[in-house]
Amino acid sequence: MKRRTFFKKGSLIAAGAGLLSPFDLLAGDNSRHSNLPKQGKRAKNIIFMVSDGMSMGTLTLADLMLRRKEGRSSNWMSLYNKGTVNRALMDTASANALVTDSAAGSSSWGGGVRVNNGALNVNPDGSFNKPILQKFKEAGKSVGCVTSVPITHATPAGFCVNVASRNDQPIIAEEYLKLEFDVMMGAGTEFFSKEDRKDAVDLFQKFAQKGYTIVKSRRELQGLSSTSGSPLLGVFHKGGLPYVVDVQSSKDLTNRIPSLAEMTRAAIRRLSQNKDGFVMQIEGGAVDWAAHANDAPALIYEQIAFDEAIADVIDFAEKDGETLVIITTDHGNGNPGLFSSDKKFDLLQTVKQSNNWVINRIKPDYTPSKLIDHIHAAQGFAINQEEAQEILRYYQGANAKSVPVDVFARIASKYTGVAFGSTGHSSDFVELMMYGPGADQLPQFVKNIDLHNFMLDATAVNAPRA
Amino acid sequence: MKRRTFFKKGSLIAAGAGLLSPFDLLAGDNSRHSNLPKQGKRAKNIIFMVSDGMSMGTLTLADLMLRRKEGRSSNWMSLYNKGTVNRALMDTASANALVTDSAAGSSSWGGGVRVNNGALNVNPDGSFNKPILQKFKEAGKSVGCVTSVPITHATPAGFCVNVASRNDQPIIAEEYLKLEFDVMMGAGTEFFSKEDRKDAVDLFQKFAQKGYTIVKSRRELQGLSSTSGSPLLGVFHKGGLPYVVDVQSSKDLTNRIPSLAEMTRAAIRRLSQNKDGFVMQIEGGAVDWAAHANDAPALIYEQIAFDEAIADVIDFAEKDGETLVIITTDHGNGNPGLFSSDKKFDLLQTVKQSNNWVINRIKPDYTPSKLIDHIHAAQGFAINQEEAQEILRYYQGANAKSVPVDVFARIASKYTGVAFGSTGHSSDFVELMMYGPGADQLPQFVKNIDLHNFMLDATAVNAPRA
Repeated sequence: MKRRTFFKKGSLIAAGAGLLSPFDLLAGDNSRHSNLPKQGKRAKNIIFMVSDGMSMGTLTLADLMLRRKEGRSSNWMSLYNKGTVNRALMDTASANALVTDSAAGSSSWGGGVRVNNGALNVNPDGSFNKPILQKFKEAGKSVGCVTSVPITHATPAGFCVNVASRNDQPIIAEEYLKLEFDVMMGAGTEFFSKEDRKDAVDLFQKFAQKGYTIVKSRRELQGLSSTSGSPLLGVFHKGGLPYVVDVQSSKDLTNRIPSLAEMTRAAIRRLSQNKDGFVMQIEGGAVDWAAHANDAPALIYEQIAFDEAIADVIDFAEKDGETLVIITTDHGNGNPGLFSSDKKFDLLQTVKQSNNWVINRIKPDYTPSKLIDHIHAAQGFAINQEEAQEILRYYQGANAKSVPVDVFARIASKYTGVAFGSTGHSSDFVELMMYGPGADQLPQFVKNIDLHNFMLDATAVNAPRA
Repeated sequence: MKRRTFFKKGSLIAAGAGLLSPFDLLAGDNSRHSNLPKQGKRAKNIIFMVSDGMSMGTLTLADLMLRRKEGRSSNWMSLYNKGTVNRALMDTASANALVTDSAAGSSSWGGGVRVNNGALNVNPDGSFNKPILQKFKEAGKSVGCVTSVPITHATPAGFCVNVASRNDQPIIAEEYLKLEFDVMMGAGTEFFSKEDRKDAVDLFQKFAQKGYTIVKSRRELQGLSSTSGSPLLGVFHKGGLPYVVDVQSSKDLTNRIPSLAEMTRAAIRRLSQNKDGFVMQIEGGAVDWAAHANDAPALIYEQIAFDEAIADVIDFAEKDGETLVIITTDHGNGNPGLFSSDKKFDLLQTVKQSNNWVINRIKPDYTPSKLIDHIHAAQGFAINQEEAQEILRYYQGANAKSVPVDVFARIASKYTGVAFGSTGHSSDFVELMMYGPGADQLPQFVKNIDLHNFMLDATAVNAPRA
């Protein structure tokens, strides 16, 4: 058989118009597809869902957990079973790295341009890329963000602002005040309250002065008028929201902390009052935080919480018929996997607390036996004496601190079977699905920056393309 | 907004006929889809390609490496860019575990039934499931297997035989003699040669007596008549084939060891002489071995070698027009990822040797400096003194052995940025693509056992379905 020549060296690609060039995936490359939605029905609304830092293992573990624990598949996988969505793989590089951070990741969608890690729609030369929610707002749509981490965090911010450093969250909160978006909900009280801000500015009051309804607890969220059209700021906790697995084990937290799905429903209710449509981002931000901490109990139940929000979004989109839903992640994180027996994995069905909860409640005066009991009560497995002593060493002595998350995770993984390759992001290609008008235009492989123009084209909005 | 009820608890699924039930993915469940190819053009040939133990990170790393090193995408990703294939995710459970081994994995396709880990188409009650290549052979097609590990190893064997334990490779070789399949190529000399077999039987001679052409080196493979229709046995090395990265650095190995793509071309040339068609499996078995060893240099170049074989297969299938190509993996392994800088990753562009090669050539009398030089010459980075001492401790003293592969890999990962979560298989859902007649019948999510009947239906072969 004669060796073919046309297939090698990526020339398969060159045969089709508008497809990726071989160099398209190099970090720093900002060339874009030109074959995105040009036809078919237009979307009025877009709901963009991000399970932040979701490796393939994270998606798998949540699905397997639901199947074994509840006898049902995840909503994510159910959509594949139903066959009503379109799927793609997406690359996730930033301008300066194959391994992106969430700022550059969200900016790739939000501004349509690869920026350096840490930047929010600000190019290396200092120039700005206009964030997509600003474009949609100017086009007359309602816009907003919902997340389980600070609403000023990188992923929501990447759809909203131009800020050179993601760390400037107090400034990002001020930018939000100027932008007057319709719904902003999540955590990060410290960036809004006068008690916590270094400048002692009461941003909550300033938002209220602009006509915002402010909600700070689940009860207040539940008490909102279903017909009010005023803009909404929801900030429910300092830092991130507590992990779902810990909320579910605490009556107090259950009363105070809304779920991602509850915030999602409240946001859709408000945003969908605009006859010209809406665009929103929903972020399962705590999925990424749990992956960084290699915290398997937190991770699996955060992904399941994200999955619950998928149900609400698809339910709305099915009834509405004019909503394009995009569900994906910005990058892998930790690349977790079940590497052991079903029996170990099944322990996580009844786990009560996250690793984070366990670690933060270990006292310096714990004996090994007391520590073993503490962990067993919270997570359902009994570590051995040597492991207990290894953990306790971190809490005792002159430079006492808490056990490093990866050390605890390594020990816990012997019992749960779930292990991680790193406490950082990965360069893995990631899963992406679309539902609704325009979804059929999704190629099988996309660059993260392609989604910016895709959203503008899908809605036929008259705004500058990236 | 009223909470919808029809979407929860997996009932999305129940709305469609023939779709997965919520329990379908539990390990041990053997219910099958009923919605597989019933229409459209039939395939005459099937080429089933398995990159054994390929996590999403493995697929990604090979693609990123080719883009940065050669300015081209992988053939796998090029097919997604071209959009001429259909994609799915696949679950990989066995009868007794979410985490399958390769015997149960291949048996799920080969016999269409989930068996326990370790078994080859033998059920827990001892009954047999007829292997798919036996069915196709009886239907008049030519059949065969090609792999980079022993041809008697679990993945090829799962398409061929009923054997209770995958470890019985000498018996599997005898079974192959009885089956008289048309092409069997790979490694595992010790299961065929009288010098190595405990029973001192010369299986090579017995194959020759049955009319087989026997090839044992790359030169012999290259010298084969392109028109001969005799059956072919190719066994090129003891154990598995040496890793591609090591072959490429050795003139001797380059002369002796064929690439997976070369074996693939020779196999297709021979099998495609049958006017009634052929069915073959091509396994990148060394991908799995490299992942078990957390050997990033070996892993990436084995995946690239598999990717080269994809080019040959698709080239044949495009010209032929009657060939269904299925490309997937049996399970994840190690869940590797790039978790660090591009600069570290780029070191792997010029790596000369696998971790395996490096580890096996460390001498007990090495000084730390000598070890540092040894590794630097082979892999391009300089470990520090402490790391050198840690490695050398394994080679010295009364119980000297070689450094554990995961210890070496952990140290190497600091320099290459590629890390692993485990030295074992994962339960991750895996990537699957199809090209050619029948590919359009692929659902977005399949169970591994679904592929057995899918292949029989795609070819409309009159053989019992599983």
